[in-house]
Amino acid sequence: MHVTGTTPYPWPYDGDLGGPGTALLVVLPVGIDPPEATEPVASAVRAAGGKVIVVRTTAPAPGGHRLPGIPSEAAAGVADLDLTAGGVDGFYASDLDLVLRTGRVRRLLLTGVGLETCVHSTMRDANDRGYECLLVLDACVPIDPSLVAASVSSIEMSGGIFGAVGTSADVVTALSSRPEPVGVLT
Amino acid sequence: MHVTGTTPYPWPYDGDLGGPGTALLVVLPVGIDPPEATEPVASAVRAAGGKVIVVRTTAPAPGGHRLPGIPSEAAAGVADLDLTAGGVDGFYASDLDLVLRTGRVRRLLLTGVGLETCVHSTMRDANDRGYECLLVLDACVPIDPSLVAASVSSIEMSGGIFGAVGTSADVVTALSSRPEPVGVLT
Amino acid sequence: MHVTGTTPYPWPYDGDLGGPGTALLVVLPVGIDPPEATEPVASAVRAAGGKVIVVRTTAPAPGGHRLPGIPSEAAAGVADLDLTAGGVDGFYASDLDLVLRTGRVRRLLLTGVGLETCVHSTMRDANDRGYECLLVLDACVPIDPSLVAASVSSIEMSGGIFGAVGTSADVVTALSSRPEPVGVLT
Amino acid sequence: MHVTGTTPYPWPYDGDLGGPGTALLVVLPVGIDPPEATEPVASAVRAAGGKVIVVRTTAPAPGGHRLPGIPSEAAAGVADLDLTAGGVDGFYASDLDLVLRTGRVRRLLLTGVGLETCVHSTMRDANDRGYECLLVLDACVPIDPSLVAASVSSIEMSGGIFGAVGTSADVVTALSSRPEPVGVLT
Repeated sequence: MHVTGTTPYPWPYDGDLGGPGTALLVVLPVGIDPPEATEPVASAVRAAGGKVIVVRTTAPAPGGHRLPGIPSEAAAGVADLDLTAGGVDGFYASDLDLVLRTGRVRRLLLTGVGLETCVHSTMRDANDRGYECLLVLDACVPIDPSLVAASVSSIEMSGGIFGAVGTSADVVTALSSRPEPVGVLT
Repeated sequence: MHVTGTTPYPWPYDGDLGGPGTALLVVLPVGIDPPEATEPVASAVRAAGGKVIVVRTTAPAPGGHRLPGIPSEAAAGVADLDLTAGGVDGFYASDLDLVLRTGRVRRLLLTGVGLETCVHSTMRDANDRGYECLLVLDACVPIDPSLVAASVSSIEMSGGIFGAVGTSADVVTALSSRPEPVGVLT
Repeated sequence: MHVTGTTPYPWPYDGDLGGPGTALLVVLPVGIDPPEATEPVASAVRAAGGKVIVVRTTAPAPGGHRLPGIPSEAAAGVADLDLTAGGVDGFYASDLDLVLRTGRVRRLLLTGVGLETCVHSTMRDANDRGYECLLVLDACVPIDPSLVAASVSSIEMSGGIFGAVGTSADVVTALSSRPEPVGVLT
Repeated sequence: MHVTGTTPYPWPYDGDLGGPGTALLVVLPVGIDPPEATEPVASAVRAAGGKVIVVRTTAPAPGGHRLPGIPSEAAAGVADLDLTAGGVDGFYASDLDLVLRTGRVRRLLLTGVGLETCVHSTMRDANDRGYECLLVLDACVPIDPSLVAASVSSIEMSGGIFGAVGTSADVVTALSSRPEPVGVLT
């Protein structure tokens, strides 16, 4: 089974939406709340047996100073797990990869704030690490709206070099029509 | 001293072009030759005492199969070091970070083929790891020329979230006018 | 099914010796040949459908100089894959983790030269990364024979903090009595 | 200048105890307090301008469950920074390397609880990453006292394959006799 309408290929590549292994990453700069459009996706993922992980990212500043991660109230309501990374990439200097491996997660849905920045960096790295990735486009907030089209194109080139792109409605429909839970992140 | 004309800030941020610590990364998909425009930059870096590193990147394929890295003749002529990474990001599953740390490299000039893909992924990761990065734009070949402007914009946002952007002529001029070698990667 | 006689717990912990996911790591300092005692284990692993990976390790030297990895004739005969790491730990600055993930390997048998050094460092890291590890003691060569007992004790403490310890004969017997291949590293 | 009496070589290798770049790592299993013997070393490091970092480590448990890091009162008094890693190795799934790089730390003094386990794993990895390491032996608590001698021997073999070993009194003396601060971790 695939999520309908994903580009440039039907996601996930192997049609396996069932069984353990799907998580939603809500990727945010430290101090920023999740987009409201994340909520229906988070609910569908959780209802299907998956987990929702809020990933706080930090941009290197002059002199290397980093802001501490401050879990926000908004995220506290949506996240099963809330972690802070040491870079714009959510995998850098964090335990994100450990958490996903421990939970036997293989598929990632990505949403968040900073489509061109932290969401993109995290999706690029996730793809290198072998996760099957889907950007949920309408649940992502760009820094600069004029860069959305190019950000999507760079994911889709070469047959999906960094994964695929879809919409929250299609993700919710696909997850809701599955007869079995997609597994539990323990 | 800075490279002239870099955006969005004068690069490097601390004005330190002298002393040890500059390397040129020529980032390429496995099997692809370096762009010709790399040559003058490589010569200038080497004349100033820096090193030139060819970084072969690999895209995950269905089933996880990866192509082996095959050093090309063209790269053999330009590289002081030639390594192959396990992902689109040149740092992934490679010894690139080790090589740079061992050589006490702090500043990276980036060129290559795949501006939006492997060059961008490597620059994003390098920035998270604390390297001061400059994309040498006219020595980069995009996969899709219509995405160049957005790729540059996403580097420059937020005051240079992934580093700065400049031209090969300005880099060559800056490196050539330095009185002292910039150091040696041993 | 377990390998008989392993300490401090029956290995693997879940009794799953079948299906995909077992590999033999032969961990060696660069330039050193595998111990002869590796051969029967390698044959049994390969017959059961697993793969044999030679992991060359390098010790940091003054000034950071590293020896290049030179695949030896001896290893060429035993290895399905032969890779070189950037440290005493076979995972450091190498694509070992990528290779194991891509091949869906979950269980590691460890042999090699340098029981207290490179074999131990690689086993410690493998365990952190979630691999279920078994040291094949009689197929390991120590640098200092007087340290073998303590090296084994430090693996076994706290119920097997770094995995378990067994013998090549028991490993060969267990793998040979399995009715089905343990899977293929592609 | 060196710390007197270190084995198997005078530490640090380059005699540079001055200038920026020394930190004390107090490596502990989650929930365990620092050894009292850490205090004089911590004071000397801090007086010399260095920083004290408490590194909480976690052992993988069946099913991959990990205990959350709970900063203890004891550590709160001694640490400039208190972080939790995802493995027995303090670098695994943590921002320790980032913190050290950002602070331009090059030399590490290591103390803690679990000489053969978490302290040893962290020292091994630190050495691979290029840090110049000194185990402060009398400020380390072993899990099994009978393994101390072998743990020390495995560090010292091959001329110091994982660094050097010294005592807290010698470290305090060396740091206290320096005329200048050793630098600040910002």
